[in-house]
Amino acid sequence: MSKSVAPVNLAEKLSQFSELWSQKKVAVLNDYEVKLAKLKGEFIWHTHEDTDELFLVLSGRLTIQLRDGDVVLESGELFVVPRGVEHCPVADEETAVLLFEPAGTLNTGDVGGPLTKAVENLD
Amino acid sequence: MSKSVAPVNLAEKLSQFSELWSQKKVAVLNDYEVKLAKLKGEFIWHTHEDTDELFLVLSGRLTIQLRDGDVVLESGELFVVPRGVEHCPVADEETAVLLFEPAGTLNTGDVGGPLTKAVENLD
Repeated sequence: MSKSVAPVNLAEKLSQFSELWSQKKVAVLNDYEVKLAKLKGEFIWHTHEDTDELFLVLSGRLTIQLRDGDVVLESGELFVVPRGVEHCPVADEETAVLLFEPAGTLNTGDVGGPLTKAVENLD
Repeated sequence: MSKSVAPVNLAEKLSQFSELWSQKKVAVLNDYEVKLAKLKGEFIWHTHEDTDELFLVLSGRLTIQLRDGDVVLESGELFVVPRGVEHCPVADEETAVLLFEPAGTLNTGDVGGPLTKAVENLD
């Protein structure tokens, strides 16, 4: 079997980085990307005008603050933030998430600024 | 909080059905669907000519047979079958998977036949 047909082990991929709020690409599906990230603390309020954004919590607990209330995700729970909906993720403990969205989606959406980071590939 | 902003709990959704080889939609992201399925036994060889297909194993073990070898996925592992690549899933034990692919993708791809099932919604 060639390397290209090995499965992606999420735990093994998560062990390869410790940086917070930095998205790591682990798979591509058509023009969408599957990414992992470790989150702790509060991000910034931002909006993706052109796409929905999926969060699946793998460990820890993630609160996605919306302007009309919070969505709290435990491990094994997912939520899709609809396009155009302002949101701000916050995690009291270190939380691992799987993200699914179109390639090229910026982590800071329409806001940009110093927290904006390019998606990185994992080996 | 309205019902629409509750997270999707994958274990709770899996507890709502027992049917094998039947895809249950649990979330929508743009024109893509997140689906759950329970698999046991061998499916049929088929191809999706127009889309990649993502399998993430939530419990059990899934073997995705390809014409040039098998990919074995344990819980917490994912694999993307590239478009146009013939494949046949098989699971010795009951296995729960999360699927991600464009809305309208048929479970039997280009082959059709009696195993073809429409995607169902879960409450």
